[in-house]
Amino acid sequence: MDQIKKFFTEQDQFAQHSGIELLKVDAGKAWAKLEIQPWHLNGAGTVHGGATFTLADFAFAVAANSHGTLAMGINTSTSFVNPATSGTLFAAAEEISLNNKLGSYQVRITDQDGRLIAQFQGTAYRKSNAILA
Amino acid sequence: MDQIKKFFTEQDQFAQHSGIELLKVDAGKAWAKLEIQPWHLNGAGTVHGGATFTLADFAFAVAANSHGTLAMGINTSTSFVNPATSGTLFAAAEEISLNNKLGSYQVRITDQDGRLIAQFQGTAYRKSNAILA
Amino acid sequence: MDQIKKFFTEQDQFAQHSGIELLKVDAGKAWAKLEIQPWHLNGAGTVHGGATFTLADFAFAVAANSHGTLAMGINTSTSFVNPATSGTLFAAAEEISLNNKLGSYQVRITDQDGRLIAQFQGTAYRKSNAILA
Amino acid sequence: MDQIKKFFTEQDQFAQHSGIELLKVDAGKAWAKLEIQPWHLNGAGTVHGGATFTLADFAFAVAANSHGTLAMGINTSTSFVNPATSGTLFAAAEEISLNNKLGSYQVRITDQDGRLIAQFQGTAYRKSNAILA
Repeated sequence: MDQIKKFFTEQDQFAQHSGIELLKVDAGKAWAKLEIQPWHLNGAGTVHGGATFTLADFAFAVAANSHGTLAMGINTSTSFVNPATSGTLFAAAEEISLNNKLGSYQVRITDQDGRLIAQFQGTAYRKSNAILA
Repeated sequence: MDQIKKFFTEQDQFAQHSGIELLKVDAGKAWAKLEIQPWHLNGAGTVHGGATFTLADFAFAVAANSHGTLAMGINTSTSFVNPATSGTLFAAAEEISLNNKLGSYQVRITDQDGRLIAQFQGTAYRKSNAILA
Repeated sequence: MDQIKKFFTEQDQFAQHSGIELLKVDAGKAWAKLEIQPWHLNGAGTVHGGATFTLADFAFAVAANSHGTLAMGINTSTSFVNPATSGTLFAAAEEISLNNKLGSYQVRITDQDGRLIAQFQGTAYRKSNAILA
Repeated sequence: MDQIKKFFTEQDQFAQHSGIELLKVDAGKAWAKLEIQPWHLNGAGTVHGGATFTLADFAFAVAANSHGTLAMGINTSTSFVNPATSGTLFAAAEEISLNNKLGSYQVRITDQDGRLIAQFQGTAYRKSNAILA
């Protein structure tokens, strides 16, 4: 898990560019956070759906790749249930199903008070390649 | 439409931060692009789902707000069908349904060769507020 | 809750036609079941996605209408993670978010052994009409 | 295509039970219809989301299996944009992407006047088995 965490922390450039920090990785699980900055906002002054999604998608990717073989996201569905404007967003990803070829994950995005901001569901296709050389 | 375009170009900070450019707005439609940079990539060396999604979500938001009243994205679903690694991504958003309270939009993300990269479906909830003061 | 249960049990004709039984209703929650019959199967000999979906959608509708005002499903997303061929399917719907106009629900479909068959996410738009006259 | 059409018409029991008729199959495409009966309705007197979904899911399955190898639906997302109460619903499924392992499809559900009732997006996982013995 340390190697997976190191890999994603160092190699996921868009997550870095978006200010996302990987907190923890377990088998089929991942936790990440994003401290909201003014540049995360949209024209309505709330956190951009793209920033919230990127946080969820990153936690999903880490959880899906935590088994050591390459997994690619093929489908995601996101419900945005509450707007956020400041503070910190947290992502908690967990595996709900896994077989040789496919994995399904759910990610909850909450704010610093535990309020649900968005709920994300993602499906990954698993290749046979190892993620780490 | 000029005012809507100006508003989103100037006020959507996360779209700016992600290198997205708004190309055109029509009633219920929007077009945008993203020139792929190394910092748009994920650990697998392909464009991050979060970057592709942000491009789609931005085009969706502009199309949904093109009628002049505030619309908030409540649900999105995205199929990632081909990876992209370099070049330019284009988003084309179109309205598939509209009533007083809800609008549904579809966004196609293609690369510079017209190859489909992702297909996005979004639902927006329409408030009564004007988007521009 | 008794009236809501009675209403859905008696008035939802397609749920009846599909062999679905409403087990219990609470505020924002619902449980239902479907005993798999040969006519629930598709050409591959597994339970049809439409039958699994109808079970989930019914539980979603009951949970969304459990507050007494009319709620209409506007978006659903379903991951089908394991096939089912015989036995009983159970749906458990729970509310993950609620405001005046919108409610979000998650439904887990499991078989008689507790194995996850499908996971469903639904958004409902809430009208001001009472569901019961 | 004649064999695929015959197979789905005869073997998909839940589609039959739901009153769905397969109209036409092409490579990556399918068309089906459902004549609305009182038993397709929900408690609100409109066509049940499960009936509309079953029609869309059936057209998706036929289109995904039209290449002759077994394809299983793994993810679907549906926007319900207009209610229907009587008349005929039509489904038109088309492939938006295809590779060895995955196919993506879009299905439009319209009524007899061409009004959009629902839009469906589905992803199928392709096995190596032939669908017809």
